[in-house]
Amino acid sequence: MNMSTTLALVAGVSILALLVALGLSRWINKQDPGTERMIEIGTYIREGAMAFLTREYRIIVIFAVVLFAILAIFINISTALAFLLGAVLSVLAGFCGMRVATSANTRTANAARTGGMRDALKVAFRGGSVMGLCVVGFGMFGVSLLLLVLGVEQADVLTGFSLGASSIALFGRVGGGIYTKAADMGADLVGKVEVGIPEDDPRNPAVIADNVGDNVGDVAGMGSDLFESYVGSVVSCIILAATMTEISPINGVLFPMLLAGAGILASILGIVLVGRSSGKDPAKALNMGTYVSSAIVLVVALALSYWLFGDLRAFGAVALGIVVGVAIGAITERYTSDAYKSVRDIAAQAETGAAVVVVNGFATGMMSTVAPILLICAAVGGAFLCFGLYGIALSAVGMLSTVGIVVAVDTYGPISDNAGGIAEMAHLPDDVREITDKLDSVGNTTAAIGKGFAIGSAALTALALFVSYAQVAGITTIDMLQPTVVIGMFIGGMLPFLFSALTMKSVGKAAFQMIEEVRRQFREKPGIMDDTEKPDYARCVDISTSAALKEMIIPGLLAVVAPLAVGLGLGVEALGGLLGGALVTGVLLAITMSTAGGAWDNAKKYIEGGAHGGKGSPAHEAAVIGDTVGDPFKDTSGPSINILIKLMTVVSLVFLPLFL
Amino acid sequence: MNMSTTLALVAGVSILALLVALGLSRWINKQDPGTERMIEIGTYIREGAMAFLTREYRIIVIFAVVLFAILAIFINISTALAFLLGAVLSVLAGFCGMRVATSANTRTANAARTGGMRDALKVAFRGGSVMGLCVVGFGMFGVSLLLLVLGVEQADVLTGFSLGASSIALFGRVGGGIYTKAADMGADLVGKVEVGIPEDDPRNPAVIADNVGDNVGDVAGMGSDLFESYVGSVVSCIILAATMTEISPINGVLFPMLLAGAGILASILGIVLVGRSSGKDPAKALNMGTYVSSAIVLVVALALSYWLFGDLRAFGAVALGIVVGVAIGAITERYTSDAYKSVRDIAAQAETGAAVVVVNGFATGMMSTVAPILLICAAVGGAFLCFGLYGIALSAVGMLSTVGIVVAVDTYGPISDNAGGIAEMAHLPDDVREITDKLDSVGNTTAAIGKGFAIGSAALTALALFVSYAQVAGITTIDMLQPTVVIGMFIGGMLPFLFSALTMKSVGKAAFQMIEEVRRQFREKPGIMDDTEKPDYARCVDISTSAALKEMIIPGLLAVVAPLAVGLGLGVEALGGLLGGALVTGVLLAITMSTAGGAWDNAKKYIEGGAHGGKGSPAHEAAVIGDTVGDPFKDTSGPSINILIKLMTVVSLVFLPLFL
Repeated sequence: MNMSTTLALVAGVSILALLVALGLSRWINKQDPGTERMIEIGTYIREGAMAFLTREYRIIVIFAVVLFAILAIFINISTALAFLLGAVLSVLAGFCGMRVATSANTRTANAARTGGMRDALKVAFRGGSVMGLCVVGFGMFGVSLLLLVLGVEQADVLTGFSLGASSIALFGRVGGGIYTKAADMGADLVGKVEVGIPEDDPRNPAVIADNVGDNVGDVAGMGSDLFESYVGSVVSCIILAATMTEISPINGVLFPMLLAGAGILASILGIVLVGRSSGKDPAKALNMGTYVSSAIVLVVALALSYWLFGDLRAFGAVALGIVVGVAIGAITERYTSDAYKSVRDIAAQAETGAAVVVVNGFATGMMSTVAPILLICAAVGGAFLCFGLYGIALSAVGMLSTVGIVVAVDTYGPISDNAGGIAEMAHLPDDVREITDKLDSVGNTTAAIGKGFAIGSAALTALALFVSYAQVAGITTIDMLQPTVVIGMFIGGMLPFLFSALTMKSVGKAAFQMIEEVRRQFREKPGIMDDTEKPDYARCVDISTSAALKEMIIPGLLAVVAPLAVGLGLGVEALGGLLGGALVTGVLLAITMSTAGGAWDNAKKYIEGGAHGGKGSPAHEAAVIGDTVGDPFKDTSGPSINILIKLMTVVSLVFLPLFL
Repeated sequence: MNMSTTLALVAGVSILALLVALGLSRWINKQDPGTERMIEIGTYIREGAMAFLTREYRIIVIFAVVLFAILAIFINISTALAFLLGAVLSVLAGFCGMRVATSANTRTANAARTGGMRDALKVAFRGGSVMGLCVVGFGMFGVSLLLLVLGVEQADVLTGFSLGASSIALFGRVGGGIYTKAADMGADLVGKVEVGIPEDDPRNPAVIADNVGDNVGDVAGMGSDLFESYVGSVVSCIILAATMTEISPINGVLFPMLLAGAGILASILGIVLVGRSSGKDPAKALNMGTYVSSAIVLVVALALSYWLFGDLRAFGAVALGIVVGVAIGAITERYTSDAYKSVRDIAAQAETGAAVVVVNGFATGMMSTVAPILLICAAVGGAFLCFGLYGIALSAVGMLSTVGIVVAVDTYGPISDNAGGIAEMAHLPDDVREITDKLDSVGNTTAAIGKGFAIGSAALTALALFVSYAQVAGITTIDMLQPTVVIGMFIGGMLPFLFSALTMKSVGKAAFQMIEEVRRQFREKPGIMDDTEKPDYARCVDISTSAALKEMIIPGLLAVVAPLAVGLGLGVEALGGLLGGALVTGVLLAITMSTAGGAWDNAKKYIEGGAHGGKGSPAHEAAVIGDTVGDPFKDTSGPSINILIKLMTVVSLVFLPLFL
């Protein structure tokens, strides 16, 4: 099989994924959006989400134009164009996915109202599948198109494509993360705590912003994050294949491309299977889809490995990636689900007060780094033994090959969450809310697993890109005994701390504005409480949007400027040290913050389920404080670090010619 | 000047320091300990503190015997003996320092009662000075004795001495840290929050344990931490001088020894100067002592550098260390003192609730890593430019040369804190309490500066030991592109997270036992509240002691076993990666936790001073939660990390022959 045919085939599979996504979104749009009130609320959410995206993209355009010019002048025009393509395709994936998600939310609620669990699950999951298929479809379409046009000889131009994807992910994750938590904290702290109205009460002026936030943070943000990892892992594999003399460049490129193509087909199949499930046990149906897709990819990897390399070394590396990805997800669940000891301990200690809850949740987050780190070490060591440095990149590709269904399952969560919000706001009967609650609770678990997967894959991708960086730079050692490398490591290690501090403070500032606004509305419109006056939802949406967009700029610039400054000032080895330092502390902090946030969240929910005094008890009050601390941890700072470590590596890779 | 004469001279200066310490402690014991009630309380505290130390040492003996046997069998008998000497001298320093500190506390309170501010400052500072002089006296006495006996040729045996110091520091910091916070949280959560009695109320059964905790944590723990850094920096310098071919071993050893000797004399002079101050402005007097000592060391370094090396390279490295040490202290103050914006912001946001306080304090802690990291980078880079790898070790020696007065100033804090507690418990008049409060508030600032200094010096010492490790191992590169090094870095980076999680959970468990006990006493002895029954102080002291000693074992073993396992399993390069990874994340976490804890503490105190509603307001309640979260951060986990990073490097250095 020659290169062009293969690439055309992969491009074809990508287009197939997009066509399936199109078919699914048409199907969703044909579903009944429900009562007039539901349509009204759904429109508010969709318009808010789209308004955010539009304004965000407007800022990104400025950033992209500047970076395009810099790339065109200092690197070359092909890299600049590849950068644009990567950015545009990531934007398209996010835009389409979110548009469908904000269409599926009302329809999920209505399916729960008119059909039942099975129908609601179907709509929510199909909505999520569109995002998943857009990520893999646009991603692999772009990579195969570029390879077809440029040929393997110019594979380094692909780093531009990866940079485009990373830039969008940066703003998507940071901006989206700030948005969603500012709205959430604003809605909760005034609505629930001060005024005493329940979650998702339509009288809360910030309630629409809160629901918009689920979409911009958990749908578009998460999608762009995994889009970046997906593209980055494949690109690093291709670059290693093209530059390393030990590997035939043709086979070395064919393998990841074909594996990614197979992963897309496996994801489509998995999606079909989940759609046909009975809907009795949503968690089981979703897991089954992921497992089937993984199994298919494993079989294909086995065949490809034998066919292209004549042995099972490539299969070994891929298998390690897949197994470690699944295992990290499972471990994350163990630390964040209320079925296990960690969360129950935190809930029990809530009786001693908020401080103990916070300390214990934080300790749990730190403790939860041990197993994922050992697993990542096992993947790195094992993959290297299998296939050298190329093997490390392969294990990243393996882990991410099923990202289509992983994103589908993950996006299903916020759609169900939104559906529940709409059911509440539209005063649908209790049995509808019961169905959406059940879907939402499954979504919480899948979200935790998805977060673990996102961090694990970010770590492996960053590592693969790091290895490519050294390979392309032609440096044979990054020596920790060189003072410049030590300095690079310290600075790199410090950046995730600084980045987290900045994003947390940003959430604080944005939430503060939101709180003031919600308080103002309750004060100036006393009719809100007895439904004689309507809250001004749009104003709250606008505040979250403006604040998030303003606050994302400084952390965003930091991620781009820091590697450039160290590369230019201290050289490529020091920059290598920076990337290594940032990778280590970044992964650790991201896991700590995500797990702690998830554990606090579920400890609160566990108490709300009746344990330790239930809702309104002192234990509950303490747990709510823990949960609120966890909000920016798990939904803003933690996930943003994934992007930081990948983006800095990509920036280093793209701008390498300047540092040499 | 020949080597033996110099060493004898330094040993003489060390003995002089110990004689001055003896003189000061005799002077203190001659002071009037005050009323019968004060003597009674003072005896409780002293007996509790000494009981803790005795039981701690009993556990350490087992550990030391095992490690001695391992060293004697696998390394050599001289290293094993040096290990014992290091352990014994560190124990002696801690024991003498704490004995005097628990004697000075009542006498400080009495001096405030009968004399006034000037007298009280004098007693408290002289008490602290004994600890400071014991640290430098015993430390340099041991090093110069070993060098005299062994000669420079066997300088590697000194690593055993360093290991002894590190082992004691580990248990001192971890055990002491758990003790002090378990007692503190137990006393506060039941006494202040549930029963509503003030701090240091004699009716609180945990009040004595709380005051004992200040001694075992802040006096003995801090002393052993800086003893370890002090010894470690000098030893790494000597080892580098003995193994590097670029430096004359004689001059390379003479320089740090003579500088340390000069530092001791400068500290004695500084102590004398502080003792002669008018006492009107305690903060100014203490700072003046430190500055004068630093200035003297700088002048001596200039002369020595020129005399021994014929140029100013050594002076440059030493000066960088001294300047960076002072600068890190000043920055720490900026983030933790209520005179600046960070703390005031946290206090202002307390009005929005506890969650916002926690998030903001944590973000402040993370943000505060930036400047110290850049300063450490500047010291590393600058010192290397001055004098290569040896320069890095020299800058650590420079930073630590004035440790005598630094520890004196630092120990003055807990003595004043104890004096305040005794004044309260003995119902001394308000004007006495006013004086001790003033002394205590100065102590809080010096404690924050001391913590910053401890972390900065731990970082530089660990780095110097790390460089010695590579030098002795004969490895020329620790290459971050080798998978084993990457794995080592990930595991090393993870260890401070695991270590912090373990110590935080330990504080939680120990505090829980304490809370149960205090509740039980209030329940079963209702007469406590109206002073008709006496609380059982000894029972609380015993609980803290047992819990702390039990909980310190697992983290302690981890610090010793982890480097051994990686060194034996993955080799010396991987172990180098582990040390580098642990150093980076360890320093960052330690700074984050110490600063966050200090900032929360002072935000609470700022509110208690009347801002944002003052004591009892909702803002105060929120700030108390932040402060309680910060307790294990700043006094247990954060400082323990200092030890972890140094100890793991020393363990690697000592056991290096096994890995090669």
